[in-house]
Amino acid sequence: MKRIAIDMDEVMADANLRFREWYERDYARRLTAEEMHGKHYKDMVLPEHRELTMKYPYVEGFFQDMPVIEGSPEVILELSKKYEIFITTAAMQFPTSFVHKYEWLKNHFPFIPTTHFVFCGEKGIILADYLIDDHVRNFKRFTGQGILFTSPHNVHETWTPRVNNWQEVAALLL
Amino acid sequence: MKRIAIDMDEVMADANLRFREWYERDYARRLTAEEMHGKHYKDMVLPEHRELTMKYPYVEGFFQDMPVIEGSPEVILELSKKYEIFITTAAMQFPTSFVHKYEWLKNHFPFIPTTHFVFCGEKGIILADYLIDDHVRNFKRFTGQGILFTSPHNVHETWTPRVNNWQEVAALLL
Repeated sequence: MKRIAIDMDEVMADANLRFREWYERDYARRLTAEEMHGKHYKDMVLPEHRELTMKYPYVEGFFQDMPVIEGSPEVILELSKKYEIFITTAAMQFPTSFVHKYEWLKNHFPFIPTTHFVFCGEKGIILADYLIDDHVRNFKRFTGQGILFTSPHNVHETWTPRVNNWQEVAALLL
Repeated sequence: MKRIAIDMDEVMADANLRFREWYERDYARRLTAEEMHGKHYKDMVLPEHRELTMKYPYVEGFFQDMPVIEGSPEVILELSKKYEIFITTAAMQFPTSFVHKYEWLKNHFPFIPTTHFVFCGEKGIILADYLIDDHVRNFKRFTGQGILFTSPHNVHETWTPRVNNWQEVAALLL
């Protein structure tokens, strides 16, 4: 059985939406799709808002009850019948996120055993045939095939294969 | 550079000593080396003490400030000059342990970058040349060379190579 490693933030969990919600709450400004396109968080916001907003992912609660990316539960459930699925998420940058990420996965993806959750940093340690991730840098030392999941910050990156949504993951792997 | 994955509990962190401390605190009985030899926790304690003691690893604080296994900081520091080191610990069984394990590693092994901490369950996902671990079951799907670190519960297991302490790890790998 081939193995797929799946990143969590911006692939399964909609961190961009959470960022936008918090930004609107704090500055009464709603980021448009155009303002987000091709940008990292720091370049989406006004320069004077940068200091506070860059701390969001380190704040307790940022990862709690994060919205689920459309299509991910259904497609991952189908993938899990044909592949061994591991969730490989870079939790070590944000230690306050551990328990929230764990609970989130148990709630939204109850069919994935907790033995298959991996909280890591460097993804070169992951042994899998495929890695679905929104950061090209995570493919650098990965020995399998990286599949780039589109997110506003990576639209200008060149990588093949790229998938724009979970329907495209299904088309590629099912 | 070859890569070594190192388990935490009973390899770097003395979980047996913590178990013994808590057992003595709760039942005023100090387990001897003979009582622990060849046994898992459940068989070390009196049958009527089993229910409470089996919960210890799930209790907040069990993994906090755990004693360090003798020789591990010095030898791992030397290994880190010759190998890439990852800490691969089965944290998913004990979600209350995440932050304590993270803080423990940062305190006692400050030379290991947090990007190289991996909290996982199934260790078949780990890509490394060596895995130093006290559970033979973790070698089952591991594709590198498993090195069994002696702990009371595994003394009757047959596995080669086996190391009895960190000096023997140094002799084997340095």
